[in-house]
Amino acid sequence: MNLEPKPMALSLPSSHRRLLRPFAGVALSPPPIWFMRQAGRHLPEYRALRAKAASFFDLCYTPGLAAEATLQPVRRYGLDAAIVFSDILVVPDALGQEVELVEGKGPRLDPIRTKSDLARLQVDATRTKFGRVFETVARVRRELPNDTSLIGFCGAPWTVATYMVGGEATADQGAARLWARTDPVGFGQLVDRLVEASVEYLAGQVAAGADVLQIFDTWAGALAGEELERWVNAPTKAIVERVKERCPALPIIGFPRGVGAQVTAYAAQTGVDGVGCDATMPLEFIARELSGKTVVQGNLDPALLAAGGVEMERQVAKILAALADRPFIFNLGHGILPQTPPENVAQLVKLVREGK
Amino acid sequence: MNLEPKPMALSLPSSHRRLLRPFAGVALSPPPIWFMRQAGRHLPEYRALRAKAASFFDLCYTPGLAAEATLQPVRRYGLDAAIVFSDILVVPDALGQEVELVEGKGPRLDPIRTKSDLARLQVDATRTKFGRVFETVARVRRELPNDTSLIGFCGAPWTVATYMVGGEATADQGAARLWARTDPVGFGQLVDRLVEASVEYLAGQVAAGADVLQIFDTWAGALAGEELERWVNAPTKAIVERVKERCPALPIIGFPRGVGAQVTAYAAQTGVDGVGCDATMPLEFIARELSGKTVVQGNLDPALLAAGGVEMERQVAKILAALADRPFIFNLGHGILPQTPPENVAQLVKLVREGK
Repeated sequence: MNLEPKPMALSLPSSHRRLLRPFAGVALSPPPIWFMRQAGRHLPEYRALRAKAASFFDLCYTPGLAAEATLQPVRRYGLDAAIVFSDILVVPDALGQEVELVEGKGPRLDPIRTKSDLARLQVDATRTKFGRVFETVARVRRELPNDTSLIGFCGAPWTVATYMVGGEATADQGAARLWARTDPVGFGQLVDRLVEASVEYLAGQVAAGADVLQIFDTWAGALAGEELERWVNAPTKAIVERVKERCPALPIIGFPRGVGAQVTAYAAQTGVDGVGCDATMPLEFIARELSGKTVVQGNLDPALLAAGGVEMERQVAKILAALADRPFIFNLGHGILPQTPPENVAQLVKLVREGK
Repeated sequence: MNLEPKPMALSLPSSHRRLLRPFAGVALSPPPIWFMRQAGRHLPEYRALRAKAASFFDLCYTPGLAAEATLQPVRRYGLDAAIVFSDILVVPDALGQEVELVEGKGPRLDPIRTKSDLARLQVDATRTKFGRVFETVARVRRELPNDTSLIGFCGAPWTVATYMVGGEATADQGAARLWARTDPVGFGQLVDRLVEASVEYLAGQVAAGADVLQIFDTWAGALAGEELERWVNAPTKAIVERVKERCPALPIIGFPRGVGAQVTAYAAQTGVDGVGCDATMPLEFIARELSGKTVVQGNLDPALLAAGGVEMERQVAKILAALADRPFIFNLGHGILPQTPPENVAQLVKLVREGK
């Protein structure tokens, strides 16, 4: 597959896309806004669409359906970005690991736990499945308003590995942490495969029309110190460097959920252009510790959005007061909860746009 | 049920129990040592015992079997404390919520999500099931060497609520966080019930022979700021105060997993005597931020114990160097992983006892 970067076919200079401006150092007012998991179960139109696909992966791999899922929240809320409808487990699935995604129940994978299990992963095999996601990206780009960004994404190698090794979502990521401690060389080979596949996956999404990328590291907070540097920061840096070799100007956001004060080292060591902050990160800390070079994205508690009302309004005002004078993208601290009333999301967008 | 504290029937003064000495301000060398989840699946003798009970709860509620499970790791490793073999979901089970514990698969509960669901919880009903745990405690105390402590425990209201409301282990504790945000009064009533039941449960364990208590708050790290204060710190403080009214001298350890830098506020606001530190907490931070009044417990990465070898030895040496000159209890940063070879645990105990 030819994944050389193509010049982006834009009819407007990219700076007309509001999401890109913070990455040029602009403290945009009101800030651009999009939401993690903005497409999905909280939307009635998504639930209707989901019923048309036999499985969650079928939805991800059917470009007509996945493009529609991607566009739904942008149409409803008028957001500054779409994010391609997909899942972080597309990468292990494309690599040939058996993955079953039971929506609402979490994933089940045939676990990979030793160096010899790695033989089951076929980097060459990713072409077909990745290709379907790239087609979704291309379709969405054609249908999306030109001033709306399209975010491509992947899971970070560490987080994806926790599922590949654990075989399911685990409370403590024990199986992956164990392999990393027992046989760091073997585990490192898994991480290297994931770096390689993720670079292809991200670069392909860019070639198809994504103009911003995000690397989701949901379980980064399970690690600390040297382990965080080795399994989170270093592989993320490798992905960032290799994607930027192909697409130098393309902004990359990292989302190292749960790392707390270690976010400063994450930003410095990975070279990401923006950092997603979870809702546990105090605003004063974010404002003080992340340099103005790093775009901050976050960090409203998704439960506060689901609840709505004055408490939400109050917290939105606090976030804007603390972060609006720096390059900033409004988002949640994690994905939208399925129980969230769409009216609350619309209300939140209005609040942020009105600068309240 | 008469839960007035009885004078502890000791043939030795309690200060002969090594685990108690840090709570008297002593920096004991070598430090006392025990492990979270020391009883359980990593032990072949536990797996044989487990096969005798129809279910995990059957094991918890059969004092003969539960006492044996409690004693097994003390016999094998010569630890300074036993911890009663039980589960944090004994409290919702005793309150009448339907709880199924599928070992290795995680719990399934009939979720409680509204104020009206609270009517299903019967504080009066706890007597029978709690009584079986108290009988286990009493049996263990009779069989345990007199210089070995016996730790009673409960889950913190917040963590227990995340299971009661979510109906299962959840990655983001979304359902509980949502209820807390949407209807803090109703959620507060659930938390109040849990405080009340936990006080009865802990005081009963003390009356039966426990000489230290631990409050496990596995999901404390999902909250921050005011929410952490309201749903973690305040209910924990209420439990600590009410248990100490009945048993003033009894040390209580809190384990607010994942709270990072907020551990200082946790220690100050809850009044716990000791704080369990997870493995992500940097040693320099612990040494600097937690005053000598607070006993520190922790914090070897359980994956490092499961892996064993020189990396484990190196980290043990670092922990001892950083924390051995203050009141300190050696433990892990979370529970022993089921994959842990018992030889590694024995080796760790030896290392700590030799002060290496």
